Amino acid sequence: MSDKIAVIGGGSWGTALAVVLDNNGYDVWLQDVSEKRVTEINQEHKHSFLPGIKLPKGIKATTDLEEAVTSSKAVVIVVPSHIVRIVAKNLKGLLDDDVIIVTASKGIEEETHLRMSEVIKDELSDKFHDRIVALSGPSHAEEVVLSHPTTVVVANQNKELAQQVQDIFMSDWFRVYTNPDIVGVELGGAVKNAIAIAAGISDGLDFGDNAIAALITRGITEVKRLGVAMGAESMTFAGLTGLGDLIVTCASQHSRNRRLGFKIGSGKSLDQALAEMEMVVEGVRTAKAVYTLAEELGVDMPIVEQVYRILFEGKEPKQVVNDLMLRGATHEIEAVATEKKW
Amino acid sequence: MSDKIAVIGGGSWGTALAVVLDNNGYDVWLQDVSEKRVTEINQEHKHSFLPGIKLPKGIKATTDLEEAVTSSKAVVIVVPSHIVRIVAKNLKGLLDDDVIIVTASKGIEEETHLRMSEVIKDELSDKFHDRIVALSGPSHAEEVVLSHPTTVVVANQNKELAQQVQDIFMSDWFRVYTNPDIVGVELGGAVKNAIAIAAGISDGLDFGDNAIAALITRGITEVKRLGVAMGAESMTFAGLTGLGDLIVTCASQHSRNRRLGFKIGSGKSLDQALAEMEMVVEGVRTAKAVYTLAEELGVDMPIVEQVYRILFEGKEPKQVVNDLMLRGATHEIEAVATEKKW
Repeated sequence: MSDKIAVIGGGSWGTALAVVLDNNGYDVWLQDVSEKRVTEINQEHKHSFLPGIKLPKGIKATTDLEEAVTSSKAVVIVVPSHIVRIVAKNLKGLLDDDVIIVTASKGIEEETHLRMSEVIKDELSDKFHDRIVALSGPSHAEEVVLSHPTTVVVANQNKELAQQVQDIFMSDWFRVYTNPDIVGVELGGAVKNAIAIAAGISDGLDFGDNAIAALITRGITEVKRLGVAMGAESMTFAGLTGLGDLIVTCASQHSRNRRLGFKIGSGKSLDQALAEMEMVVEGVRTAKAVYTLAEELGVDMPIVEQVYRILFEGKEPKQVVNDLMLRGATHEIEAVATEKKW
Repeated sequence: MSDKIAVIGGGSWGTALAVVLDNNGYDVWLQDVSEKRVTEINQEHKHSFLPGIKLPKGIKATTDLEEAVTSSKAVVIVVPSHIVRIVAKNLKGLLDDDVIIVTASKGIEEETHLRMSEVIKDELSDKFHDRIVALSGPSHAEEVVLSHPTTVVVANQNKELAQQVQDIFMSDWFRVYTNPDIVGVELGGAVKNAIAIAAGISDGLDFGDNAIAALITRGITEVKRLGVAMGAESMTFAGLTGLGDLIVTCASQHSRNRRLGFKIGSGKSLDQALAEMEMVVEGVRTAKAVYTLAEELGVDMPIVEQVYRILFEGKEPKQVVNDLMLRGATHEIEAVATEKKW
């Protein structure tokens, strides 16, 4: 079998995954639409989103999708979520029948509310529908390129296929687990970006660590509620791609969603805040998609709803955090507990 | 009913709870064994562990336990866990029959493996056994004294009693929930301190946020495993006193357990590291108690076990984090998922 692997999308996470694969001995082709970025990677072996990092010379960047994917054993899609459909469309006719498609893009399509693996299925012919694996987990690109210990999950109902992807990415510092629950793994990775905006807002208001911990705790409960309504396993949300990823996104300085929230909490408008961000902020689009999806399904998601109201209806951030943290009622039992013992 | 409340233990958390109670209009007596600390609080209205904070003048500090607790509506015990038994012993004969005893001390007694409410029961006569409520949750004292939004849980099987404590502490920035599961609430508050040492060690080794998120995710799973073996409700560990408190302790700069771990991860011995800490570090004692308790009960707690081996058997920190994060086997499914779908 070919030892060529294509990574589609040369942002920070795509580039970090390319580093992982190069380190594992694969012939890595990194496709990106930006000529400037491709030249920088090929000639200077660096990336503007990963300052100070020398990329391995084995990584070959290209703007040509066909050059990247032809005869590849696996194609890893790591573009922003709203670009995934375009990439899948463009892949038609370029893939070998036994290719493995890995999606590491995190989001819910705004118009259709489809998960990323579903968007890819929607565009590719039937023979590829059982060959799509999701990769997600608590993993900042900035740390992965430094070989810091990282754990991720690859998910597909087909155990052998998931294990093939596990073998491809696994190394002594990049630990890969498998999970059959692709619905839960994809949702956990997507929705956490919206919750992270709330964490950033709270921080921008200088509300401190106690409030962040409460937001994460409440946040995973509402992500789980949505997931179960969509057919995911509730236990997945207690794992690396649910809780683990939510923690790293909400509590770490690397998260761009949290940074965006911080700007908004500090008094900036969404437009101002977005203008100051160099990278794509998935949480904004996700907040909108998840808010409407939760409405449709009748799932209560107070944090996502409030983030939506701040971003798209101009609600005051301070009011929102107060509403979330300090709701009126007294004599409230903890949300996760039940009244059954009382 | 009296509006006098006694807080026993003038450390940072006891003092923060005294501030909450003073803010709610109670006549607050703060008892501490240190003459120096009592004088500082009474005359200068400040506390060396809470730099820059002006304490309310209403708080009356005393070294005299009897003066503090006589005719008090509630007695809040917030001393280090190994001092709780001594305090409970000294309270004998001083308490009114209708007093409410609140324990905010977090730990497991080393010799007996009892929770703090059980230690108090052990020393007090039968008539007080149903009047002990545990208070726990993600709450750094340093933030509480600044009136930052904070959420805690009070736990007792008796709903009315729990609600009385809820009413005493509740304010618009200090949100109190009730939970019937005192076993789960006390264990969550205690065991997280041992896991936080592991998080600090990982940070001392500069392993980054991805590793911390993985430790927290794995950590709550093993705390839950112990809790269920001891009769707690598994859902409690998904709440504020389980997950929430573990997050704030592992991911925040305020945690002294994490700071101790950081020193050890940076190459210091336990003795050196402890010598540099001004405050009591509960996690060291807890790691020992929980390790032996888990052994007895046959509960698998890999993180607590490894923390024990570093602290008490001199194992190399780097080796431990590698052992935890990067175990040998391939084809591992995620611990929280089950094989049932495969």
